[in-house]
Amino acid sequence: MQASESTPFIQEVVTRDDFRHAMAGLAAAVNVITSDGPGGRAGFTATAVCSVTDDPPTLLVCLNRSASVHAAFSANATLCVNTLAHGQHELSNLFGGKTDMTERFAAAQWHTWVTGAPVLEGAAASFDCRVSKTVSVGTHDILFCEVVALERQGAAAGLVYFDRQYHGVTARPV
Amino acid sequence: MQASESTPFIQEVVTRDDFRHAMAGLAAAVNVITSDGPGGRAGFTATAVCSVTDDPPTLLVCLNRSASVHAAFSANATLCVNTLAHGQHELSNLFGGKTDMTERFAAAQWHTWVTGAPVLEGAAASFDCRVSKTVSVGTHDILFCEVVALERQGAAAGLVYFDRQYHGVTARPV
Repeated sequence: MQASESTPFIQEVVTRDDFRHAMAGLAAAVNVITSDGPGGRAGFTATAVCSVTDDPPTLLVCLNRSASVHAAFSANATLCVNTLAHGQHELSNLFGGKTDMTERFAAAQWHTWVTGAPVLEGAAASFDCRVSKTVSVGTHDILFCEVVALERQGAAAGLVYFDRQYHGVTARPV
Repeated sequence: MQASESTPFIQEVVTRDDFRHAMAGLAAAVNVITSDGPGGRAGFTATAVCSVTDDPPTLLVCLNRSASVHAAFSANATLCVNTLAHGQHELSNLFGGKTDMTERFAAAQWHTWVTGAPVLEGAAASFDCRVSKTVSVGTHDILFCEVVALERQGAAAGLVYFDRQYHGVTARPV
């Protein structure tokens, strides 16, 4: 069932499209997840990222097992979550599309910290991580990631994806 | 280490406070998670919610095992994710604080669908779910939740928590 945009809908037989439509109502930060190592350099865009626990500091990332980058991330077992700032949505489109890896990484400046995963210059926040546990649910792997280095740009406005559009959210005045 | 708000900081020995400070840079939707059943009626506020897979339609919720509501959610094994709309942040504060359950639920209107979990009137989206799998990582349980009914209000503006403040994000014009 496709509902009109102006009225709510309640669906008791949940199809993929219904789920995706409703999930578009759950705003999320936009992240470029990167990795480098024996599996090669790779990166993809993800909104399915959240905090798990601060003891030890751990977040999670959901990754489709059929994604082209899945093999690289499995082999490397390390990654960097680069949370995009307002104004970086072109990187989201690039890392969420079919562009080859060389071209994706050529569009921005990167450095490395502990794991060797590319850390994005100008991100709102970056989390360099080791994958501590992987759980498979349906089509996806959930990568539990222990944070070994991080950076936060306190003044950066955030980039949010909501209702299939990008939005900026301002940081507290400094 | 506490950084000033105006400069980035890079931290290679990650403390809990560093992790929380950096995670405040990852914007997130605000959700009230509710449940009812043999464990009793309970609800709490969570930003650690994300989509996992659309086959079968599944999301996840992170819950501290030391939270007062943990026993009720474990016993019920069902829950509803109510994604708050702009203007509902008082409910977030109420369900994220120490107020008793009766008073929390008295502050809004609720109905039920399939599982019996309270569904919030006026939420941006609601997802009635059965918990299909639970994984423990550090202090938290990750509840994988298969969606059995849902609702989306297409015109509702979203509520986002970013930089320890609430923000509204507008929906596409209808």
